[in-house]
Amino acid sequence: MTASIDLPADPDDAPLSEPLRKRFAAIVGPRNVLTDPAAMAPHLTETRGLFQGKAAMVLKPGSVEEVAAIAKLANETLTPLVPQGGNTGHVGGQSPRSPGQVLLSLNRLDTIRAIDPAGRTITVDAGVVLQRVQEAAEAADLFFPLSLGSEGSCQIGGNLASNAGGTGVLAYGNARELCLGIEAVLASGAVYRGLRRLKKDNRGYDLRDLLIGSEGTLGIITGAVLKLFPRPAGREVAYAGVADPTAALALLRIAERHAGAGLTGFEIMPRLALDFVLNHIDGARDPMTAPHPWYVLVEVSSSRSGEDARQTMETLLTEAFSAATVADAAIAQSLSEAKAFWHMRESMSFAQKPEGGSIKHDVAVPVAKVPEFLDQADRAVLAAIPGARICSFGHLGDGNIHYNISQPLGADKDSFLSRWREVNAIVHGIVAALDGTFSAEHGIGLLKRDELARTKPPVEMNLMRDIKRAFDPNNILNPGKLIQI
Amino acid sequence: MTASIDLPADPDDAPLSEPLRKRFAAIVGPRNVLTDPAAMAPHLTETRGLFQGKAAMVLKPGSVEEVAAIAKLANETLTPLVPQGGNTGHVGGQSPRSPGQVLLSLNRLDTIRAIDPAGRTITVDAGVVLQRVQEAAEAADLFFPLSLGSEGSCQIGGNLASNAGGTGVLAYGNARELCLGIEAVLASGAVYRGLRRLKKDNRGYDLRDLLIGSEGTLGIITGAVLKLFPRPAGREVAYAGVADPTAALALLRIAERHAGAGLTGFEIMPRLALDFVLNHIDGARDPMTAPHPWYVLVEVSSSRSGEDARQTMETLLTEAFSAATVADAAIAQSLSEAKAFWHMRESMSFAQKPEGGSIKHDVAVPVAKVPEFLDQADRAVLAAIPGARICSFGHLGDGNIHYNISQPLGADKDSFLSRWREVNAIVHGIVAALDGTFSAEHGIGLLKRDELARTKPPVEMNLMRDIKRAFDPNNILNPGKLIQI
Repeated sequence: MTASIDLPADPDDAPLSEPLRKRFAAIVGPRNVLTDPAAMAPHLTETRGLFQGKAAMVLKPGSVEEVAAIAKLANETLTPLVPQGGNTGHVGGQSPRSPGQVLLSLNRLDTIRAIDPAGRTITVDAGVVLQRVQEAAEAADLFFPLSLGSEGSCQIGGNLASNAGGTGVLAYGNARELCLGIEAVLASGAVYRGLRRLKKDNRGYDLRDLLIGSEGTLGIITGAVLKLFPRPAGREVAYAGVADPTAALALLRIAERHAGAGLTGFEIMPRLALDFVLNHIDGARDPMTAPHPWYVLVEVSSSRSGEDARQTMETLLTEAFSAATVADAAIAQSLSEAKAFWHMRESMSFAQKPEGGSIKHDVAVPVAKVPEFLDQADRAVLAAIPGARICSFGHLGDGNIHYNISQPLGADKDSFLSRWREVNAIVHGIVAALDGTFSAEHGIGLLKRDELARTKPPVEMNLMRDIKRAFDPNNILNPGKLIQI
Repeated sequence: MTASIDLPADPDDAPLSEPLRKRFAAIVGPRNVLTDPAAMAPHLTETRGLFQGKAAMVLKPGSVEEVAAIAKLANETLTPLVPQGGNTGHVGGQSPRSPGQVLLSLNRLDTIRAIDPAGRTITVDAGVVLQRVQEAAEAADLFFPLSLGSEGSCQIGGNLASNAGGTGVLAYGNARELCLGIEAVLASGAVYRGLRRLKKDNRGYDLRDLLIGSEGTLGIITGAVLKLFPRPAGREVAYAGVADPTAALALLRIAERHAGAGLTGFEIMPRLALDFVLNHIDGARDPMTAPHPWYVLVEVSSSRSGEDARQTMETLLTEAFSAATVADAAIAQSLSEAKAFWHMRESMSFAQKPEGGSIKHDVAVPVAKVPEFLDQADRAVLAAIPGARICSFGHLGDGNIHYNISQPLGADKDSFLSRWREVNAIVHGIVAALDGTFSAEHGIGLLKRDELARTKPPVEMNLMRDIKRAFDPNNILNPGKLIQI
């Protein structure tokens, strides 16, 4: 675990006894148990390197019944269970923390159970990788809009457990809005069977949405019914160069007016972020000849035709030029160029790595306040850390900015990263004053647990604790994540 | 209360003592208390005449603080509180049931607190009538899509408490999906201050969605932040005559393909329903010259222009004609004709009244199963009640049918209505076998409480009871509605 970030102390669970290990192992069979450190390692480390997990064993159940049996045994023996999907989370929600914890991997629950093209739903196991859901939809001439940088390895169960966002939220909503029903194993081992395929269902309290976003602390999601959408007949992607975030916001309004619900992407990034991509990502190239202070990636989709999407894109860019909102723009001239445009945006986090340490934020403010946020945050951060290289990119259409700060050139990485919490406090303070959130789409996990407890009103924390106790009286489900009991 | 419908017995709360009445009255002031039976009557009866309420008094608080003070006093004195908005609910959720219950009317909380055109949100008190929200949006050149038959009198707080549906769900979602944040008074008198305006906010459990749809049993919604949308530049409405529900479904697919997210209305009704409207609604006229077995109301919106909407409507109808999916169609030729087309659809419940008793259902099945549902239900109902006049209309695009059954010609109303529960059992059994719901958009309230408890899996009922106890340990908030503790 990176010493520079102040994280809650690891729990001191007693290591699992040998007889108990055997009982857990017997549920899934010896081939689906990992105990060897090398075999467990991929489940215990994550991409950011912030969390180094510890676990008694990794279990890979092959059915909902096996997940239920594991939960039942864990509940009876007070064994902490940490569910894990693709292990791509950014806040440590999926990381086990002691040799007394059992990691429950959903990897083997990877069946696409059913697809209903007429009803436009797909029913999947939790362990299905997001990209496979997208591909299955496409094979049925439909579209699943959840789209993340990690879509090649993240799993739909984890996406729902963390209410993932991504670039498709603008037009289609968060993971929550894309889910009609879920199935989950509860702490007792009972199964919540909520795989409903209905757009309207008002039978009692909304347990589905309580489980979604609960980061494995209220139940282990094992399956889901997801909404599918008509596949756009046409799609156009462009980069526009703009002077500043205010101009980007003006472009957003123009794009919304012309494209309506067909505005399916609107991402912002500063020149610095583009430079990082150009320097570190193979095949990246500057979309325009002259440099611009800020860039917007615009995507327009049409249910009618490629020509229609093209026309909308050209019309909105023409209006933006006339209004001097946009300085220059480049429309992708082929499908592969469109993909390359998106790839540059999606590579931004990755492109920051060679630039040294990065202090990261996942904030959102009301859309209209984004320019104000960026202005205030930049001043405050540069006052605290002169030379900090601010790489603030993200989903402007949702007000969600990944306000990431690369270390000053030549600075010491560790001493820069040791200021993580200090810089968080500066940025999150500005966000709070603008009615924003310090966790827009990455969740709470371990990284932000104590900040949540400090900042959320006691009345809400108390309700959350009551809910946690009602769902998981023995605190065996992902204990210490999101909320401490 | 109509004796013919089996409802849970009224509670035997002790009548409120005079000193306690005075304490409640002192919170809102004498001008905002009703105790006279005639003055209370509009709050105690509802449009269907199924529920005849009883209450100690009606309180009309003028601020969130007054609502909080009322809840605090109720909680301390174990006084049942029944929150009420526009009193338009269909399941008795808003009806008090004993002289020991206090009715809390939200009528005076009717301020539009703020509108943010750039962020496309509106922040309102719970007691604002839905139509006023629509009008305020329109005045800002924006659009609020929640639309119900009762929009002239229902209130947004009640819409959220019951997660209202309506005709806009197809393109924009239920009330739940239209709400970014809520404010609610909890049983203790504490205020949940969740008036967030963010599209992405992953800070802990989703308390907002738990309160939405809880029918006043977990908290009293006092305010909300609602999403607004760009106002369509063009809108077209048409009636199409089709042979049967299967043809209507085929038309839905064609319409979706052409209009995409611009398909903003898709309602189905049988000829019988149209006949009732033509016979009983002033100004209604047959949209086509020849009669058809079934009718579909199609609405197409365009973000670009009226011409664009018109062209889409014509293109989709032309394809439907060519495929022999549609027998005839009439496109509204003016804004007033478009309104008249919608008015006919919205008057359907009303038009059933002069035809005698009506046994009603609010069911949904997966969209593709609607024809199968209608076929099975019609056979079963007609076998049980020969001559029953089935007036099954509704939101085909959502799979939501108001399967309403008018009494046979010449039948005795009371003896027909005495078969309400028997007919419910027939229809809901078919719905359950098709993975549907017996409460799509009207909620549970009192009318369906016991059916919910009978049919929901015990694991879910137990979680719901735990949640109710956590939020409202003294069971003072709308006790006996939705769930019995």
